[in-house]
Amino acid sequence: MRQKLLSEGAKELSYEIREIVKKANILQKEGVDITWENIGDPIQKHAQVPEWIKDIIQRLAADNNSYGYCDSKGVFKTRKFLAQKNNQHGGAQITADDILFFNGLGDAISTLYHYLDATSRVIGPSPAYSTHSSAEAAHANHQPLTYKLDPKNNWYPDMQDLRNKVEFNPNVVAILLINPDNPTGMVYPKEILDQIVQLAREFDLMLISDEIYHHITYNGARAYALSEVIGDVPGIAMKGISKEMPWPGARCGWIECYNRDKSLEFDQLCNALDDAKMIEVCSTTLPQMAIPEILGDPRFYEYREKLNEETGWRSTFIADTLSEVPELIINKTYGAFYNTIVFKEGVLRDDQSLEITNPQAKVRVEEWVEDVPLDFRFVYYLLGATGICVVPISSFCSDLLGFRVTLLEEDEELLKKTFTQIRDSIREYLDS
Amino acid sequence: MRQKLLSEGAKELSYEIREIVKKANILQKEGVDITWENIGDPIQKHAQVPEWIKDIIQRLAADNNSYGYCDSKGVFKTRKFLAQKNNQHGGAQITADDILFFNGLGDAISTLYHYLDATSRVIGPSPAYSTHSSAEAAHANHQPLTYKLDPKNNWYPDMQDLRNKVEFNPNVVAILLINPDNPTGMVYPKEILDQIVQLAREFDLMLISDEIYHHITYNGARAYALSEVIGDVPGIAMKGISKEMPWPGARCGWIECYNRDKSLEFDQLCNALDDAKMIEVCSTTLPQMAIPEILGDPRFYEYREKLNEETGWRSTFIADTLSEVPELIINKTYGAFYNTIVFKEGVLRDDQSLEITNPQAKVRVEEWVEDVPLDFRFVYYLLGATGICVVPISSFCSDLLGFRVTLLEEDEELLKKTFTQIRDSIREYLDS
Amino acid sequence: MRQKLLSEGAKELSYEIREIVKKANILQKEGVDITWENIGDPIQKHAQVPEWIKDIIQRLAADNNSYGYCDSKGVFKTRKFLAQKNNQHGGAQITADDILFFNGLGDAISTLYHYLDATSRVIGPSPAYSTHSSAEAAHANHQPLTYKLDPKNNWYPDMQDLRNKVEFNPNVVAILLINPDNPTGMVYPKEILDQIVQLAREFDLMLISDEIYHHITYNGARAYALSEVIGDVPGIAMKGISKEMPWPGARCGWIECYNRDKSLEFDQLCNALDDAKMIEVCSTTLPQMAIPEILGDPRFYEYREKLNEETGWRSTFIADTLSEVPELIINKTYGAFYNTIVFKEGVLRDDQSLEITNPQAKVRVEEWVEDVPLDFRFVYYLLGATGICVVPISSFCSDLLGFRVTLLEEDEELLKKTFTQIRDSIREYLDS
Amino acid sequence: MRQKLLSEGAKELSYEIREIVKKANILQKEGVDITWENIGDPIQKHAQVPEWIKDIIQRLAADNNSYGYCDSKGVFKTRKFLAQKNNQHGGAQITADDILFFNGLGDAISTLYHYLDATSRVIGPSPAYSTHSSAEAAHANHQPLTYKLDPKNNWYPDMQDLRNKVEFNPNVVAILLINPDNPTGMVYPKEILDQIVQLAREFDLMLISDEIYHHITYNGARAYALSEVIGDVPGIAMKGISKEMPWPGARCGWIECYNRDKSLEFDQLCNALDDAKMIEVCSTTLPQMAIPEILGDPRFYEYREKLNEETGWRSTFIADTLSEVPELIINKTYGAFYNTIVFKEGVLRDDQSLEITNPQAKVRVEEWVEDVPLDFRFVYYLLGATGICVVPISSFCSDLLGFRVTLLEEDEELLKKTFTQIRDSIREYLDS
Repeated sequence: MRQKLLSEGAKELSYEIREIVKKANILQKEGVDITWENIGDPIQKHAQVPEWIKDIIQRLAADNNSYGYCDSKGVFKTRKFLAQKNNQHGGAQITADDILFFNGLGDAISTLYHYLDATSRVIGPSPAYSTHSSAEAAHANHQPLTYKLDPKNNWYPDMQDLRNKVEFNPNVVAILLINPDNPTGMVYPKEILDQIVQLAREFDLMLISDEIYHHITYNGARAYALSEVIGDVPGIAMKGISKEMPWPGARCGWIECYNRDKSLEFDQLCNALDDAKMIEVCSTTLPQMAIPEILGDPRFYEYREKLNEETGWRSTFIADTLSEVPELIINKTYGAFYNTIVFKEGVLRDDQSLEITNPQAKVRVEEWVEDVPLDFRFVYYLLGATGICVVPISSFCSDLLGFRVTLLEEDEELLKKTFTQIRDSIREYLDS
Repeated sequence: MRQKLLSEGAKELSYEIREIVKKANILQKEGVDITWENIGDPIQKHAQVPEWIKDIIQRLAADNNSYGYCDSKGVFKTRKFLAQKNNQHGGAQITADDILFFNGLGDAISTLYHYLDATSRVIGPSPAYSTHSSAEAAHANHQPLTYKLDPKNNWYPDMQDLRNKVEFNPNVVAILLINPDNPTGMVYPKEILDQIVQLAREFDLMLISDEIYHHITYNGARAYALSEVIGDVPGIAMKGISKEMPWPGARCGWIECYNRDKSLEFDQLCNALDDAKMIEVCSTTLPQMAIPEILGDPRFYEYREKLNEETGWRSTFIADTLSEVPELIINKTYGAFYNTIVFKEGVLRDDQSLEITNPQAKVRVEEWVEDVPLDFRFVYYLLGATGICVVPISSFCSDLLGFRVTLLEEDEELLKKTFTQIRDSIREYLDS
Repeated sequence: MRQKLLSEGAKELSYEIREIVKKANILQKEGVDITWENIGDPIQKHAQVPEWIKDIIQRLAADNNSYGYCDSKGVFKTRKFLAQKNNQHGGAQITADDILFFNGLGDAISTLYHYLDATSRVIGPSPAYSTHSSAEAAHANHQPLTYKLDPKNNWYPDMQDLRNKVEFNPNVVAILLINPDNPTGMVYPKEILDQIVQLAREFDLMLISDEIYHHITYNGARAYALSEVIGDVPGIAMKGISKEMPWPGARCGWIECYNRDKSLEFDQLCNALDDAKMIEVCSTTLPQMAIPEILGDPRFYEYREKLNEETGWRSTFIADTLSEVPELIINKTYGAFYNTIVFKEGVLRDDQSLEITNPQAKVRVEEWVEDVPLDFRFVYYLLGATGICVVPISSFCSDLLGFRVTLLEEDEELLKKTFTQIRDSIREYLDS
Repeated sequence: MRQKLLSEGAKELSYEIREIVKKANILQKEGVDITWENIGDPIQKHAQVPEWIKDIIQRLAADNNSYGYCDSKGVFKTRKFLAQKNNQHGGAQITADDILFFNGLGDAISTLYHYLDATSRVIGPSPAYSTHSSAEAAHANHQPLTYKLDPKNNWYPDMQDLRNKVEFNPNVVAILLINPDNPTGMVYPKEILDQIVQLAREFDLMLISDEIYHHITYNGARAYALSEVIGDVPGIAMKGISKEMPWPGARCGWIECYNRDKSLEFDQLCNALDDAKMIEVCSTTLPQMAIPEILGDPRFYEYREKLNEETGWRSTFIADTLSEVPELIINKTYGAFYNTIVFKEGVLRDDQSLEITNPQAKVRVEEWVEDVPLDFRFVYYLLGATGICVVPISSFCSDLLGFRVTLLEEDEELLKKTFTQIRDSIREYLDS
């Protein structure tokens, strides 16, 4: 090539959650039977989209209009529906013009960070979800900035850490929340949200709230929407249908911009996002057309309630089962469909192992565990010995050691078997 | 806000094609009946998606798997199908791994330019399609770089101009083709493609070919795919289903990377695009699943042939009708569904006008024509006087004066009426 | 111009210390007699360069070799002399190759910050010396990063503030000291230097120590060179002859790089500085040739001792005189030749004034005091009423309110008159 | 280090002219006697600064004011003197405010390019003088942009090449001239300057003219100052005393800004340069004070005339001597004190050599000639065989093969011997 092609920022792109999949695929070829506990896709974990929802989609698929472009900001009727839905909370009020559709939140996230000035940083939670942390790092050509979620305190944010990192780093212009949180399953209590809003107000920041799991709460919790707590602070909520309907394959998400009238600069940023989408013409039409019909149907909330209840049951079963290992820090979860299990300090060593019966798998795992963080070591041994695939937590921009599991397995017997096996394997590993 | 939010590059985002829509909407509110000749969406111009295609989509909508995430590069089966399809040409050969799905070409374009180094420029045709030119300009924080398409020579590229701009600007790393071209309807002859490939080889460039209209040719033309002519030069073809099926609302497009083994840097760029998509998880699933079924069905090619024939007829009618005005440069078109009409030099003046009977519309238009390029002046008067909405060509990064029309109107009588009226209005305007 | 010329960083260039000069010049033209207490140039404040030093310079001016280029890093003999001088302390050891001459420290500072990556920040003291803070801000296209010097604690650094800003901002790669400090006259105690070195070691930072006033200490203090305390941490000391000889007009300063072998990246930075100087060929020759003769002469240290004693006397007189105003925070100084006087919180208001007898000057000052920080208001009134020109402290990137004076006035009567008048004017101003 | 320190641009810093010195030093240690024909420093080539000039400097060295800072833009009296001097030509008129002093032109060059936006490029001549080309490349993080000087046409610029590179690269905002030129000795004829000014006007560019050798012309030529030809185009002339007095060790040069009132953006750039110098306080004082006394003295012009005559004689002798080798392209020179000798195409091969009698030197040279451009090969053999050190021309951003010599040797016998030896060695080398 005539000169260098790649931008420096491209080096920051990584999504380690998917790296473990490559390893699992290798072992699968060697004959290991894999249990995919790494995947946040309900569909792959046997969730069934309800028939009445499929009926709506099929009906729309017969309508010629579903095939055309829509308004570059998104289908007007849908945006109006969503604005009303938000406004019912009585918090920050919006109109259809304050909503912008994207091809899933990944698109929204990339675009938002891309058009921020390189010197303007967004601080987000650690453990971090890579879609946010990689895109933000790529925009700044620098490692991600994170505040700590504390596993010893229900995974609530370490507010002092957050305040310090905001106060002492003048490049921070926004605080990111994921609420309910991936990968911890934590749901932000209102008091903490109020403190974060206050912090943003004090330092003239905007707020970004990823609310993709908003309707997925259980065990008595409910998630507060950003608009309910934000007051007069500028902010963006990110929402979508991937997890709740669930329809991740639709790539259909949107942002809601609150308090555009409170800051000219914030308003200009929102306009730039509109412009950026306009040069791509628009986002997916058909799923947008389905939203008012589905989210406006009372069956949707009954359906979600039932699913949430089941997720809650699984969450409790998993937490109870793994709590039998005293070397672990276990938190019950209240939202989303992950749990993050942390090993207490000092319990992992670089000479622990599990017995792997498949000889080829044994060779592979023993190669992989050279020079990796201690949680990767455990995860590789677990994979080789049992075929259970979980994600090491140190790949989420965290200095904790542990792993993420999902709460998605709909087959109760399989769930019980898997987590019993995880528990027993941890015991064996720690005692080895 | 604590500090400036927006990147400098955000200033380059503009999509003037959509600006004329705002003007038309204003006149519509004033009572003017608008004929939308500006829109490149077949669906909005009354095209019907064939029932057998809708049947396929509906069937997939009943399948739970359509709702899940797919492989981050795209559905494997579909990529394999497309690789085979490409390989049949006998040109540059690829595998499923050389294909990457995006949420429409707008997404592909933004992502590609975003991860190019800011000093690495892509030169594209003028008149320019804004999705390319704005995204490229935003990445470089600089005005778009373009080579001229020559209306006096069938809109073929001015090869000397292209060579000069490549040879004398060492920041150029890639040449972009849109083939068939939007907005000119030109289809690149093989000899010209061979020259461009040779130019790329000589200066160590890569090629980017937007082939979204690949199967939309008529009047005896056929479009050569990049892979047929590229030889050993690294390059990327951009393809999709928006225009040909047509299903623009699907936001489903893909890139094919040729000759990754010929340049390490090019290969790294392709890998970075994979990584960028991975952090967004994947692109739309259902449309990808439909591709092998639809494009693998012989009915698809019969259907396209019929549509192409009709487009060819309309193209000829429009060219013949407007050719009656000797002050225009008219080219017959051979692909895509636009024609770009250019006024000969000197025929437009800033005192020409059309009679506008609606008094509010008259006031508006007279305000708008202050200090605008002469083709905007004509376009505004045409809009006010007749309600026909076309796009001025100077908004396509061009110093030509003229306008773009579409060849999409399926209602023959309406088509005839519209273009007769355009012809007569031009006559009246030029004589005023 | 064809496109925008100026870089974004250029906006950060400001040197407000010089802005007050423009105001003073205006009043001078209106007939006000100015006493320049703003200037850190001993020569302009009547210091005489000793005859024996002038003799050396004159002798060199007769030598043809003084007129030629020298080695691009600086005259070898001089660098060897300076390396030995540094090595006598017994701290970090260097050779002539670790020294690089610049055209004054302004040149050294601009060049160093220029070749740091834009994401790599240097944190320095506030009140800040503009040459450092503007150049660093311009390189990062962002406001300067500073840690607080505390006027209530002898202007020592607020170590907790410094630690916080280092710990919580991962872009900080270096800590800057000015020792002795301009504008506070503080000299860093060894314990504090040790803490700063420890902080740098803990966070893998380099240290930059501006030691232009190294030999200007009094009132019992002595300044520790960076090399005495740095241990194995990479660091750069900045030295020169502007203030100590004094020969500011020579534009002759140098950097000493410590522990290049301890960090490859630091070593590469030092090499880049060599390269940057090489493309400018070299720095001023004659002053470099004079250095071993002057600094190697015992008369130099006797001469400095006498000057320091006098500066100490003036420092004490000024501090004692101004201490009579209880609304001020006054620190005795121990090095350099400035003092920074701070108004206690709340004592300045926007309705205070001094009587200005010159009517034109009165009009000017009343215009200037609209919408300025409260210390600017005081400084303008003092200038209009008495002709005494001092620099407001809020122009040193500080949120304190106060002003900087110099300790340079060699005419004792004038000194006494000036500072008595400042004291009385403050009294009058505060009581107004 | 905590994160990467060096900016990308730092990679562009190189000054290959100095690289040959390292090689020569190595051979010197091996016992080879070096004749330094690479150095553009008259002082090192035995030029004597006239006694009357030294007297002025010595007198100033006795004046206390010579030691102080001066006005940040430079000594006012000197700037006024220089403005008048420029204005006498009757071209673009300036005042003292349009002049800004730097610490030599290296400083002026670095600062100017540093504060240009990274997307704004300056195109300069090739062969290129590294101080310009490296600094410009570093600012743009890209290879230097150059236009060709043509050895077959008196080293005049290839105007078509220049026009092409300006016309077809919209990032070019300025054309750089070095007049008289280093390293070719060419002096721009007025007709060519007029064409370049016209080109700048046509494309809305500014002009930069490095006039450091302005008074060094001979063989009947005279150099036109930029201000004489610039008309109403914005431009900057760079001037200094390094070569003409000669006093390179003074690091004293200045820029003159023409037509600031013709472009707001140009004016802002000039202001930014003022600001950049202000944060460094000022440039060297004493040499500035000497300028009106020396350049205002009629003896200066007599002295220069004599030196120029001698340089002209040497230029002619060298050109005549080397012209005896028909494989060379030789141009008589008219200004500055270099000549660039080019080998005709095809006469250099990678198996040519000279006999080197010093066995260690032979080993070294044979190592060095692996994988180097063919002119480097010749230069290394010449150095090893004869001790004569010249600079290969391919190190001046040129694709020509040849070498640069200086016209500075004041010892006539040594000059004759050196160039006779060069001629004979070339003959022997080409015949080997």
